[in-house]
Amino acid sequence: MKIALVQLNYHIGNFNANTEKIISHINKAKTEGAHLVVFSELAVCGYYPHDLLERKEFIDNTQKAVGDIVNASTGIAVVIGAPTVNTSKRGKRLYNSALFINNQKIEKTIHKTLLPTYDIFDEYRHFEPNKSFDVVEFMDKKLAITICEDLWDNQPTNNSFTQSKLYITSPLEELSKLNPDLVINIAASPFSFDQEGTRKSTLVRNAIEYSLPLVYVNQTGAQTEIIFDGGSMFISHTGEVMHEMAYFKEDFRVIDTEASQKKEVQTNQPAIAKINDALVLGIRDYFNKMGFKTATLGLSGGIDSAVVAVLAAEALGSQNVRVLLMPSKYSSEHSITDAVELAENLGIQYETVNIQPIVDSFENALSPIFDGTKTDVTEENIQARARGVLVMALSNKFGNILLNTSNKSECAVGYGTLYGDMNGGLSVLGDVYKTDVFNLSRYINRDREIIPENIIVKPPSAELRPDQKDSDSLPDYDILDDILYRYIEQNQSPGEIISAGFDAETVRQAAHMVNINEYKRFQTPPILRISSKAFGFGRKMPLVAKYNG
Amino acid sequence: MKIALVQLNYHIGNFNANTEKIISHINKAKTEGAHLVVFSELAVCGYYPHDLLERKEFIDNTQKAVGDIVNASTGIAVVIGAPTVNTSKRGKRLYNSALFINNQKIEKTIHKTLLPTYDIFDEYRHFEPNKSFDVVEFMDKKLAITICEDLWDNQPTNNSFTQSKLYITSPLEELSKLNPDLVINIAASPFSFDQEGTRKSTLVRNAIEYSLPLVYVNQTGAQTEIIFDGGSMFISHTGEVMHEMAYFKEDFRVIDTEASQKKEVQTNQPAIAKINDALVLGIRDYFNKMGFKTATLGLSGGIDSAVVAVLAAEALGSQNVRVLLMPSKYSSEHSITDAVELAENLGIQYETVNIQPIVDSFENALSPIFDGTKTDVTEENIQARARGVLVMALSNKFGNILLNTSNKSECAVGYGTLYGDMNGGLSVLGDVYKTDVFNLSRYINRDREIIPENIIVKPPSAELRPDQKDSDSLPDYDILDDILYRYIEQNQSPGEIISAGFDAETVRQAAHMVNINEYKRFQTPPILRISSKAFGFGRKMPLVAKYNG
Repeated sequence: MKIALVQLNYHIGNFNANTEKIISHINKAKTEGAHLVVFSELAVCGYYPHDLLERKEFIDNTQKAVGDIVNASTGIAVVIGAPTVNTSKRGKRLYNSALFINNQKIEKTIHKTLLPTYDIFDEYRHFEPNKSFDVVEFMDKKLAITICEDLWDNQPTNNSFTQSKLYITSPLEELSKLNPDLVINIAASPFSFDQEGTRKSTLVRNAIEYSLPLVYVNQTGAQTEIIFDGGSMFISHTGEVMHEMAYFKEDFRVIDTEASQKKEVQTNQPAIAKINDALVLGIRDYFNKMGFKTATLGLSGGIDSAVVAVLAAEALGSQNVRVLLMPSKYSSEHSITDAVELAENLGIQYETVNIQPIVDSFENALSPIFDGTKTDVTEENIQARARGVLVMALSNKFGNILLNTSNKSECAVGYGTLYGDMNGGLSVLGDVYKTDVFNLSRYINRDREIIPENIIVKPPSAELRPDQKDSDSLPDYDILDDILYRYIEQNQSPGEIISAGFDAETVRQAAHMVNINEYKRFQTPPILRISSKAFGFGRKMPLVAKYNG
Repeated sequence: MKIALVQLNYHIGNFNANTEKIISHINKAKTEGAHLVVFSELAVCGYYPHDLLERKEFIDNTQKAVGDIVNASTGIAVVIGAPTVNTSKRGKRLYNSALFINNQKIEKTIHKTLLPTYDIFDEYRHFEPNKSFDVVEFMDKKLAITICEDLWDNQPTNNSFTQSKLYITSPLEELSKLNPDLVINIAASPFSFDQEGTRKSTLVRNAIEYSLPLVYVNQTGAQTEIIFDGGSMFISHTGEVMHEMAYFKEDFRVIDTEASQKKEVQTNQPAIAKINDALVLGIRDYFNKMGFKTATLGLSGGIDSAVVAVLAAEALGSQNVRVLLMPSKYSSEHSITDAVELAENLGIQYETVNIQPIVDSFENALSPIFDGTKTDVTEENIQARARGVLVMALSNKFGNILLNTSNKSECAVGYGTLYGDMNGGLSVLGDVYKTDVFNLSRYINRDREIIPENIIVKPPSAELRPDQKDSDSLPDYDILDDILYRYIEQNQSPGEIISAGFDAETVRQAAHMVNINEYKRFQTPPILRISSKAFGFGRKMPLVAKYNG
């Protein structure tokens, strides 16, 4: 059987664009002689529509799009993901379904069994789970059609107090009783640099365990925070990855399940290259899908804004990035020259605004009220907020979207000013620890010096008071990031982290800073997600709570 | 049987405080001769801990607290809510449970069957649902113990495209097969002014349908956005509400299920009084539980900030509210005098800062870059943001927490400035439509003029350009709010709203404004929830999406 694997970048709710793209690939698959063409999970509407799924217009539009796709499916069978309506009198109103379309009819609708509700996933909010199992017969073969999480029945629970399996049902175990010949899995599986290999090993385990070949079709593209990385696969019944499609872009491939396979896989990239590509795709899709063209940001002469400027220029083109240099009396001379050098290396437009008169006007206005008080973090925040106002003014006047430049280490410990440097339409580095920001800068400079070396090697500083350095108030980033990674991504308790050999005081201080800054992260822009646990809606903490540890 | 109903205000994660409060009420119940004392859902840890439930320390602390409560239960039986660990090898690691404690032992652990995952509820993320049913035998009676949503099996689905039942299982139908004598329901049921009566009618329906008396114990107090309103009840087997406890505060009552009942219910309050009480409790608990004491806000002379100042003074005391008047050249004289009059009526500290020199300093700094451009919303936003910086400076310097004053109508249509008037630690009116802000002002002035009449009667204006009025760019608030309520709370489609008799152009414009401003609401402070659909984590919309209608 010749199967076309179609890996596309969808846009949530953009039914016309998605349908047009889907139908053109159905036609392409026909042209290339495929018997069956496979698209990914919720392809018709894009993943994940959240509460748009509660709107009648959204479901009406889905059904209309499905109708158009069914009509276009002449002479080829199609597997495609879409929400479908639960017509029984009880249970949630929708299923997350795979449609099997043949002879211009929906011959079978398969519903997703395992609905993820951890991290960024929230499918139980809208979907009723499947409880019955059946295979699809096509060209004398039995197809076991599954949807993403259905193959992740071995998933461990996401907590730190017991290790066991998250799910009670194993869909493929049920389906295997019906003697299928091939497994098809349609997915919406996002990128996490620190789960590298987990996806592939999960799929391979399934192929081996049930001794079945496996067609896996993922999607690509970013939907606000979530970045889908593609990497669709065909795996043999012995668990060998025979075909592996592109990462971070659309791809199309026709495989023949009968013929002897020539192995065609991707060259493995280092994690930092993937992070780079993920962030570039994240920026580009945010702008393309929102209908924006140009970006702005404040270029401080520090490494975070330097890396964001480079990624933005790669994503949008140098001509579409316009930056503001906003020195104060605490800015060092090299900060300005470093920033200018970077802007010139990138060929991006830059302008300089001295914030000192603005800061002075605030301090003058407040002086009767602040009379007799000591200088403290208030005055530092005024500088950060004056910059925030300036860069937003540029954004409002010229329609440039402000990119936020805070990194994950800062977000974690609350080292940033709300309504100041925490401003932005999109946070580019909010899921990238400072140590990885350094790694990114080295990766960016791999062929030539784009980011001036001085920006990379100088000690990090917010430059909000004389001779300030990050290390005055924070542990060294390599230690801090290791602690934060264990606490946030790995859900280790402070006690466990201390047992692993870290200084008790440092661990407790870091955990405390994470906990008392939930209120700041509540108001941050959407953060491009590259790890298994980003700040944002995949990590929900109460604000009003007593935190222990 | 004498049963003590204990309605308390818990603090998430504050195990010592919660446990102490619980044990002192166990003792009180004993003193008053109760055989059984009933506390509410997740009382031990507070509702809702979100992803703290994934932390080992949190579960350890819960278990320790439960141990202390068990030890304290001498000579009385206890029903209390707590998360418990799923010890089987599969499924989510926790249950949302009711512990039946007797003779200083946990005699039975009952798990919640219906786990809500709509609106603000997210219980399937952490809990495995119950699938088996049993009654508890105590003093020759059989108790059917249920947890909150378990009695809401008739709940309709939350969408606009079909009407049917959300759940497949009916826990009380299962339990009724075991011939119970009494139903106990422990709850964490939040206040929504527009679902007034739904809770009571749901409980009454259950009592009548199964011909069983019903003990219902809710909690009170606010947990960030969510406001629990109490109102615990005892309902007879004929569906008569015999006891109804206080709203928006702690309460304690011992009932005798055998004795003839003297009816003791609450006087019904108008909805606007409940909204007032809910918001005051919301502010007070946010401050108390976060360990804050004093608040600040910008007093513009408009009605929104006036109402917030009054509510804050009621919640925190006049001496703990300090406001800033921040006129610009567009501020009318009466705005300042009205604001001063209000501040003096309330006896709160106020100071005045003229923002014009600050605005001028921004405009001077930007003039080389803005050269040749026209004045537009940029300059309006600079004013709003200059005010945002000033009031945050006051907050930083003196530790006053900034209260946000945006109303729900503004939040809905995006009529507000990010990093300007959208700033704040807590949004007081973000779930209150403008028409209800007016109603609140009338309610506040019911006995005497606290808010100057001129603030109430003058046409709403942001005063960011000469002679600006809200009605220049928005429909009249009574029409707008009606459309918004149908679109947001009732999930009606624009087509349905137009069919109900509204102007098509106005409806489409309003829906469009709601949809294109998701990005702004993404960054708003937590919003005190008083309706059935507040902006915030109970309403999750994708940012990068094409919205239709």
